[in-house]
Amino acid sequence: MAEHPDYPRTRLYIGEKLHPSEPVMLHDEQVHYLRDVLRLKPEGAVALFNGVDGEWLGKLRVLEKKQAILDVISLLRPQTPTPDSWLLFAPLKQARHETVIEKASELGVRAVQAVYTKFSVVDRINSTRLARILQESSEQCERLDVPELLPDNKLETVLSNWDSGRALFYGDESGGGENPASLTACPDSWALLIGPEGGFSHRELQILRGLSFAHPISLGPRILKADTAAVAALGCLMSRLGDWHHKPSFRTAS
Amino acid sequence: MAEHPDYPRTRLYIGEKLHPSEPVMLHDEQVHYLRDVLRLKPEGAVALFNGVDGEWLGKLRVLEKKQAILDVISLLRPQTPTPDSWLLFAPLKQARHETVIEKASELGVRAVQAVYTKFSVVDRINSTRLARILQESSEQCERLDVPELLPDNKLETVLSNWDSGRALFYGDESGGGENPASLTACPDSWALLIGPEGGFSHRELQILRGLSFAHPISLGPRILKADTAAVAALGCLMSRLGDWHHKPSFRTAS
Repeated sequence: MAEHPDYPRTRLYIGEKLHPSEPVMLHDEQVHYLRDVLRLKPEGAVALFNGVDGEWLGKLRVLEKKQAILDVISLLRPQTPTPDSWLLFAPLKQARHETVIEKASELGVRAVQAVYTKFSVVDRINSTRLARILQESSEQCERLDVPELLPDNKLETVLSNWDSGRALFYGDESGGGENPASLTACPDSWALLIGPEGGFSHRELQILRGLSFAHPISLGPRILKADTAAVAALGCLMSRLGDWHHKPSFRTAS
Repeated sequence: MAEHPDYPRTRLYIGEKLHPSEPVMLHDEQVHYLRDVLRLKPEGAVALFNGVDGEWLGKLRVLEKKQAILDVISLLRPQTPTPDSWLLFAPLKQARHETVIEKASELGVRAVQAVYTKFSVVDRINSTRLARILQESSEQCERLDVPELLPDNKLETVLSNWDSGRALFYGDESGGGENPASLTACPDSWALLIGPEGGFSHRELQILRGLSFAHPISLGPRILKADTAAVAALGCLMSRLGDWHHKPSFRTAS
């Protein structure tokens, strides 16, 4: 497996329009990253994406201590949508949800949302830090967008405002759920909900069981940690409902 | 979701026979764990398993500073086999393979093996530490056995001694592989091989492609980190080929 020789090794998410007529000016952190960490030189190539305009080849015209300007040269890939999939996660101890959303980003979710449940031990998230993790993982995994960080909220509130057109799969350790390998329904829009270390409360499960859009899934006879459950279930669901029939664009079979 | 009221909260792997006629004597670390960490008292209940005799209810007869003796009371669950599945992993930087094998244990693999590849940056593992991680994760996830730690070896050596009755799935980023959600073959015995951070070499991929028992799988259009790929792919394969149609034994639907 090898990278395509013409594909830049460096990718940056740009919060602006990408078009050949408009050079891109980088912000301080990106300047530092390209100049001091990667030690790029003027004329160096960078892949640029903004979640809207596709991926573009950028070339460094200026790279100084406090300033970097890139020319937008040519389209590498047109924009394609990520699967309409969300991850709802209860924040975990030792911020282990940070690793979970990083992996959810790699696996292809379109949005993530922290939800607070009865047994949630952690009752706040660091949104700035999570947004940065989502951006960096998107840059690294060759996505064309960055997952949206939906506003954190109580689970009950989220459920009562739910758009019933979106299926909600939730991990149910009591074993009543469907094996994700053999789902009968294959919705286009879906979310996966993973509870905290202590699982869902009796009341939360009762609420979930009463919702027509909510579907329990079973992840086997062993008791999975919340972060294991999130990544394994997301892998299952994405392989079945997502875009895993597509292959990476810039890998050669070497 | 709630634990069954009669099921002990503490589980221990015991390296000896389990039978009501033979009390179990714990070793020093286990004595310390029960007495000083969990602060159990004599008469306290512990679930015991050894990978052979099923899971037994144990009751502490003696719990002193240097000694603990458990009576083996009654069978909680008969022994059932875990799916005949292995994880072969290239050791990762910052020992991230430790998290991977912990999760592989939860997900239900029967054995794990470190394999050294051309692009492996890490060229040794701490077998003692890995064995302990496998045991502790098995105690926590309610398995009835502990995954075997197969001897670490070079990938090429492992492949040349392979039992061709065991299917070998490997992650292929060049995208030639099958989506694990739609595998055509469903072998009873299988292994998942995940390469190191830098992927497989040209030669390694050539060797793999020439082996009748080796099957490339595709994990979608994004570039996954090795640890993400391992957990997500294992989730997919276990849901499809493993025992995820079984539910946890000691969870009530509450």
